Amino acid sequence: MPVGTQGTVKAVTKDQLLETKPQIILGNTYHLYLRPGVEVLSYFGGLHKFMNWEKPILTDSGGFQVFSLAQGKNKGGKHKAEVILTEEGVKFKSHLDGSWHFFTPELVVEVQEIIGSDIMMPLDVCPPYPVSHTTAKDAVEKTIRWLKRSKETKKNNWQALFGIVQGSVYEDLRKESALKTVELEMDGYSIGGLSVGEPAEEMYAMTEVVVEILPQDKPRYLMGVGTPENIVESVDRGIDMFDCVMPTRNARNGTLFTTFGRVNIKAAKHKFSEDPVDPECDCYTCRNFSRGYLRHLFNAEEITGMTLATIHNLRFYNRLMEKIREAIKENRFQSFKKEFYSKYKS
Amino acid sequence: MPVGTQGTVKAVTKDQLLETKPQIILGNTYHLYLRPGVEVLSYFGGLHKFMNWEKPILTDSGGFQVFSLAQGKNKGGKHKAEVILTEEGVKFKSHLDGSWHFFTPELVVEVQEIIGSDIMMPLDVCPPYPVSHTTAKDAVEKTIRWLKRSKETKKNNWQALFGIVQGSVYEDLRKESALKTVELEMDGYSIGGLSVGEPAEEMYAMTEVVVEILPQDKPRYLMGVGTPENIVESVDRGIDMFDCVMPTRNARNGTLFTTFGRVNIKAAKHKFSEDPVDPECDCYTCRNFSRGYLRHLFNAEEITGMTLATIHNLRFYNRLMEKIREAIKENRFQSFKKEFYSKYKS
Repeated sequence: MPVGTQGTVKAVTKDQLLETKPQIILGNTYHLYLRPGVEVLSYFGGLHKFMNWEKPILTDSGGFQVFSLAQGKNKGGKHKAEVILTEEGVKFKSHLDGSWHFFTPELVVEVQEIIGSDIMMPLDVCPPYPVSHTTAKDAVEKTIRWLKRSKETKKNNWQALFGIVQGSVYEDLRKESALKTVELEMDGYSIGGLSVGEPAEEMYAMTEVVVEILPQDKPRYLMGVGTPENIVESVDRGIDMFDCVMPTRNARNGTLFTTFGRVNIKAAKHKFSEDPVDPECDCYTCRNFSRGYLRHLFNAEEITGMTLATIHNLRFYNRLMEKIREAIKENRFQSFKKEFYSKYKS
Repeated sequence: MPVGTQGTVKAVTKDQLLETKPQIILGNTYHLYLRPGVEVLSYFGGLHKFMNWEKPILTDSGGFQVFSLAQGKNKGGKHKAEVILTEEGVKFKSHLDGSWHFFTPELVVEVQEIIGSDIMMPLDVCPPYPVSHTTAKDAVEKTIRWLKRSKETKKNNWQALFGIVQGSVYEDLRKESALKTVELEMDGYSIGGLSVGEPAEEMYAMTEVVVEILPQDKPRYLMGVGTPENIVESVDRGIDMFDCVMPTRNARNGTLFTTFGRVNIKAAKHKFSEDPVDPECDCYTCRNFSRGYLRHLFNAEEITGMTLATIHNLRFYNRLMEKIREAIKENRFQSFKKEFYSKYKS
């Protein structure tokens, strides 16, 4: 899922985004609640109409953002973050204007009902990494209690509500969280609290523990992941859905993903290159422009460079998923994975 | 002519630009010479191929940029500008890295032959405004001597070379400059040194003086102009061509041009507006998005907002020119002008 935090995927228009062939995009309840706010979203009849987007939207609950603020990870904010966690919910200061807000599991579902996302995430407790077993256990148990309240709040049949499995890097807690979440018979299952700084091996290990417990006939979503390698490895372990800012954020910094690995398009070696970014790519950027031209746009700090890079990276990720789906359908995922690694170098 | 100083019109891709239906775009010799540089442009076979642009390109000579640097007008530069004007040419320090360069009329034509622009501008002397009669007269006479050298340098028949009329706001100098330029039988005629801070009435008065002398069967180009009103007034006085950063630069600041005047899309009054930017506009932005959504994108500092605004403003300007051409063909320009002012409010 391309990430469209604030009602647009950054640096592209709706039609440029559609051309990269995403199945669904991600929005963020925390950001949309603060700006443009529920009053505007309600007036416009939800996010689909507001941004004129007809394909599905999944909204993250904003739990991750609120707790990230507390850890000082939101560098864009002008206001010092403060977060107070209680059984009832989480009180936090907006990174935009310093105003206080109170998120409860109920409010977060209600906001997502106004947003009108096709898939909603419940408010969860996201501890930092690393974290003690005691704190991680508290987070797991509160997340379950909040999930029950979220489920009871949900009104619309057409909106899906997932559960989020927490438990940091503790196998026993991941198991406990997965079992209790599955008991609540959700529409799908997210794995949260990974890709937050732990080694990739820990992430894969925890994914394996959790996936074993999740029902095979429901979507399994690994939140905030990841690199192309992370995606291939996680699909191999049973994951169906991903979201990550990696393709879009890297694009704006001039890092492009290709069949053969990452390319820093600003590098001097591309100065006279008439080659496309990726010879195997069918995106608008690769069909029309050379590495030399893209390098010039980045060196001249032209916004157009960011746009062309975003189009390419999104198409790279979406094409990777297309190839994965095809390989799975044709029962040849392992040979696909081998071929992927034979070309893609980290 | 949309302005594409550095090898792209800012914040749009080639196809987004084409959808706004420009007849021609403008590039800048000064900027392109410094970055990506003639070596790169030569390697790629010129600017058309480098940026994959098939429609015509006009390149400004860079005279205006070099002399603007001397006046401290280039705020983007990291290096203190220095300019030394001699009969031979103009020596200047790059605003990018402080390196010294020497532009002669010959070099500037040769660079534009490498760029491969369809219409070339000769190196001219652009005095500041206001300027003494003596300095303005020197500029006029040097510009003519340089034009002769430019014409003698030019190799390719398929590339047009215009002359540039100078003379500040002095009627006698404008006449002298126009007469001497016309004597050289150029492919077209530019009026330079206007729209540099003088009152609009002075600009119109000088335009009238010059147009009277210029041949009717050659294109007349008023450089760096201007607002929609400036364009309508100047066409009325006989001008055929314009370039201006106004539509693109204003777009990136959230100022949108409409049939009814300018709109600051960031204003709170658009918060709940489901209207398009301009009900009479056929652009991608107006067909797909509301003022309320655009306001949100600008408030959230999303690049996508700049792109959508640029698309709209370019289409507004190109559509204005379409309507002007149609009115002229149908011999009803005065009634068009009246109708334009009945709606458009400054």
